[in-house]
Amino acid sequence: MLAGIIGLGLIGGSLGLALKEIKMFKRVLGHDKKSLHEKQALSLGLVDECVSMAEISECDAIFIAVPLSQVAHIVNSFTNLRISQTIIDLGSAKSVINSQISSKIRKNYIGAHPMSGTEFSGPKAAKKDLFKNKILILSDIASCGEFQIAFAKEIFVNLGMQIITMDSVSHDKHIAYISHLPHILSFALANTVLAQEQPENILALIGGGFRSMARISNSSPITWRDIFKHNREYLLESLSQFQGSFSYAHELILNEKWDELESWMKKANSLHEFL
Amino acid sequence: MLAGIIGLGLIGGSLGLALKEIKMFKRVLGHDKKSLHEKQALSLGLVDECVSMAEISECDAIFIAVPLSQVAHIVNSFTNLRISQTIIDLGSAKSVINSQISSKIRKNYIGAHPMSGTEFSGPKAAKKDLFKNKILILSDIASCGEFQIAFAKEIFVNLGMQIITMDSVSHDKHIAYISHLPHILSFALANTVLAQEQPENILALIGGGFRSMARISNSSPITWRDIFKHNREYLLESLSQFQGSFSYAHELILNEKWDELESWMKKANSLHEFL
Repeated sequence: MLAGIIGLGLIGGSLGLALKEIKMFKRVLGHDKKSLHEKQALSLGLVDECVSMAEISECDAIFIAVPLSQVAHIVNSFTNLRISQTIIDLGSAKSVINSQISSKIRKNYIGAHPMSGTEFSGPKAAKKDLFKNKILILSDIASCGEFQIAFAKEIFVNLGMQIITMDSVSHDKHIAYISHLPHILSFALANTVLAQEQPENILALIGGGFRSMARISNSSPITWRDIFKHNREYLLESLSQFQGSFSYAHELILNEKWDELESWMKKANSLHEFL
Repeated sequence: MLAGIIGLGLIGGSLGLALKEIKMFKRVLGHDKKSLHEKQALSLGLVDECVSMAEISECDAIFIAVPLSQVAHIVNSFTNLRISQTIIDLGSAKSVINSQISSKIRKNYIGAHPMSGTEFSGPKAAKKDLFKNKILILSDIASCGEFQIAFAKEIFVNLGMQIITMDSVSHDKHIAYISHLPHILSFALANTVLAQEQPENILALIGGGFRSMARISNSSPITWRDIFKHNREYLLESLSQFQGSFSYAHELILNEKWDELESWMKKANSLHEFL
């Protein structure tokens, strides 16, 4: 069997390393529309070979790890798939793309979301253990072929992932709160501090708390633009909910309601009872 | 020489471990108004002995690591200090307390802020390397005795810290943005997600980004209530500035201004050029 990976950045590159390690496929092929990414991927050993899209289209498992705005177009471009081929989209928002997949190849398509990533991007950010012991969400599997579901599960279990299933609308709603909102907050914190402070003061003063909160504001604007665009509705809902909590704390501090503020923080602490 | 530590939680307990290790003091004494904390501190070896406040008041270096609302009262209770004694307050906000220190002992008092901490609290959270390679801010040193400044620097350099000096008002303003605002954001994120999601979904879905952003929402409400209260003015300013950045992003997403959102994220990325 052959694996083909389209997009050799953080996710695609890490997947290449991990697939090579588990030896489930005879060869792991790659393709990236940026020739620099292909050169880097080869020199880093992320894939065995970089090939054309035509060759990728022949692979048994085709993984798609490109910005979301390109996913549906790429998936729908595979018009001559064998019934045994599986296309696995690794994007971070699922319902819009699910609705755009051509019915002709819908059984071949698996919407997957690995809950793993870092704030870095590009082939050099690839890590072979990125997926190990992480959650993998399979969405809308009722529309997938039974073989494709079984094959995808086999691959991700072999990568050391824990699989859960969810419809794509629920996925997008939960992920808005648990992943997309936190990214907006980190970007907004970084921009707030940049507007206020001289670089030398930031560097001189930061402790672990700031580093932790600002880390994901280094994430790729190109990747995240598409994620925010594809999950706009639920992201907006999560932003409004956050605004409510933030404004509540702001009011308590403004009005010096310290007991209520302490209770509000105690409530937040309770999150950690089940993390 | 003797060191005395008042408050044996995360900061005081970690300091006890670190002071014992550098062997600059003959003995490291401790005091905590909670007898459980004293028992835990002794059993964990954070200090050599727990003693009364009267005995602490005889120490050469007296460290204060209690919630901010108790600091000025404790410092001003030392009415019979020798001119060679040094009281080092380790609190996270400095200007209010600086204004409350009695002029009679002002030369003995050093306002210090170690830029180190974790989201945990109490004696069991103590770590001997908490201060190593971290920043220590000394504030308003123009009001301190020359001996006290030299002594405090000697201690913190021996603990492996890098010392910077700053007036307490500048300290509080910078720290509002770099530490206090991020804590509010983390508490607000935790509360937003708690209000929205079932515990089992949170646990099932979280990845590294959420963990990173929610980590400091486990911080002590008692400690942070006092920090927010003592830095209310600059904290409010930082909340308003954050609100501006957050609302800007919210508007861009609402109005589907994706190019502008991408530019806003790119700007945030630039923070990491000098971290």
